[in-house]
Amino acid sequence: MRIGIDLGGTNIAGGLVTDDGCLVFKKSIPTRIDSEAVLLSDIVAHIKTIASEAKGEEISSVGIGVPGHADDEAGLVVCCNNVPLNMTDLVGYVKRETGYECHIGNDADAAALAEVRIGCAKDFNTAVMVTLGTGVGSGIIINNKIFTGCNGAAGELGHLCIDPEGLSCNCGRRGCFELYASATALIRQTREAMKHHPESLMWTLAGSLDDVSGRTAFDAMKKGDETGKKVVDKFIRYLSIGIIDVINFMQPEAIILGGGISKEGETLLAPLREITERECYSTYKKKTEFLIAELGNDAGIIGAAFFGD
Amino acid sequence: MRIGIDLGGTNIAGGLVTDDGCLVFKKSIPTRIDSEAVLLSDIVAHIKTIASEAKGEEISSVGIGVPGHADDEAGLVVCCNNVPLNMTDLVGYVKRETGYECHIGNDADAAALAEVRIGCAKDFNTAVMVTLGTGVGSGIIINNKIFTGCNGAAGELGHLCIDPEGLSCNCGRRGCFELYASATALIRQTREAMKHHPESLMWTLAGSLDDVSGRTAFDAMKKGDETGKKVVDKFIRYLSIGIIDVINFMQPEAIILGGGISKEGETLLAPLREITERECYSTYKKKTEFLIAELGNDAGIIGAAFFGD
Repeated sequence: MRIGIDLGGTNIAGGLVTDDGCLVFKKSIPTRIDSEAVLLSDIVAHIKTIASEAKGEEISSVGIGVPGHADDEAGLVVCCNNVPLNMTDLVGYVKRETGYECHIGNDADAAALAEVRIGCAKDFNTAVMVTLGTGVGSGIIINNKIFTGCNGAAGELGHLCIDPEGLSCNCGRRGCFELYASATALIRQTREAMKHHPESLMWTLAGSLDDVSGRTAFDAMKKGDETGKKVVDKFIRYLSIGIIDVINFMQPEAIILGGGISKEGETLLAPLREITERECYSTYKKKTEFLIAELGNDAGIIGAAFFGD
Repeated sequence: MRIGIDLGGTNIAGGLVTDDGCLVFKKSIPTRIDSEAVLLSDIVAHIKTIASEAKGEEISSVGIGVPGHADDEAGLVVCCNNVPLNMTDLVGYVKRETGYECHIGNDADAAALAEVRIGCAKDFNTAVMVTLGTGVGSGIIINNKIFTGCNGAAGELGHLCIDPEGLSCNCGRRGCFELYASATALIRQTREAMKHHPESLMWTLAGSLDDVSGRTAFDAMKKGDETGKKVVDKFIRYLSIGIIDVINFMQPEAIILGGGISKEGETLLAPLREITERECYSTYKKKTEFLIAELGNDAGIIGAAFFGD
């Protein structure tokens, strides 16, 4: 039995995971970000709560996915968005306080690992998961293991450049993929289109600019709205640029799409496949499959439980 | 002892390579592209010529690097530019005609493998080689092995998109990296600048537009020519876009630059490091090192000899 923790800016989600990936117990507590000390103490308390549900079964390891950059070898959380861990020896702390072996990693990597080990990509060994959320998160799995590069920071696909003269990104580049293909970007693109098209059905569906979501343009398109369709087409076009880059780079067996927008399923995948087929450098024999993530929020817990394995 | 063959559009280069990567004999013959049959027969004849130089030492395997897409598992050359091999069972043919075990692969992958095994990157296990030539060739080495993806076609970095509204590429995309950062691209950029700047020293150095080379702008810059400097700056800026993409994607231990332009050494590397430092997503701890390829044309022979190993 293992423990997986998915540390987020809002909640610390955690659970008991069997060696074959079943999540047999899960529980979340709010993330208190008052200080590093408070957060560390809450993480350890939550691990102990979860362990107490193991009913005497041995806990072989704890894995913690963090919303940022972790160096498992050094045991350090290098830096995180939204939570006060900065060059924090999280592994050392958890080991000392709980006695359990501990591994840490990036939360998007955890989700990718879970989908490949027991989720939608369980028939594949090499896959890239691209999560369309506030930004574009991603995890690279090669031969069933997370590929982290020389310093734990590989797989930052959200920061591939798709337009050198494009929007400024806070990473220091211009035209980063996530500024065009995240849920945040889709919402921005939807709002801009609505401003230019007061006749669009999107006004009725969303109610106001403030209530626009990642679904607004998709829903409008399905009801025949032309502006909605244009927004979706352009968004998928942007998405395809990064996806084709990934395929030309590493020809993974599968690309897994996650995040709210991925729930559009074939509405998203069909045009993406068509563009990819046309523009990928090689389409010989085995082609990269497109899959929709299926483990939802549990992926972060399950994947973290597999860290170091 | 192994045999390595580097099949090019002009020459079939080959040699005897020791198990630790020493090229102890090499010989080239012209590539006759009259037909697949002629080419196959020449390849086998050349393998036999080279084998006869082994002075009785056992040949453990033959590796052949091709200028295109090879599927070693299936034994097939899928397609090649400039040489008439198209879904050709090269491995089967060589085995039948010579009795040797045979592996095939891409020529840029061979060069990358050689540089990591015994060349400039021998202190590293995970590296990406980027060769600036007619196009941008590349090879990805992970844990000392070529990473080919699910179908043998990974590592087509020349076809990362760096400008979705940019120049049309014959791969079907727009704005491919190699249209901006290859030697061919630099020559085009140099000629364009010369047309707009009749006062530039580049006219004196090159003599005419027809005689422009990948060195023209670099040479002019070193002599204080402003237009030459602008061409070089812009070229390095383009190059950095693809290089930073590679780093954000996989954080390799090293990036190896090859091809004629790489002979510029620090003139090329110093600004590239500076831009990368500023724009890469993570610069924590271990950073990707920039190296210049050192094996030259021998890399293709030596790397091919290591295929399948």
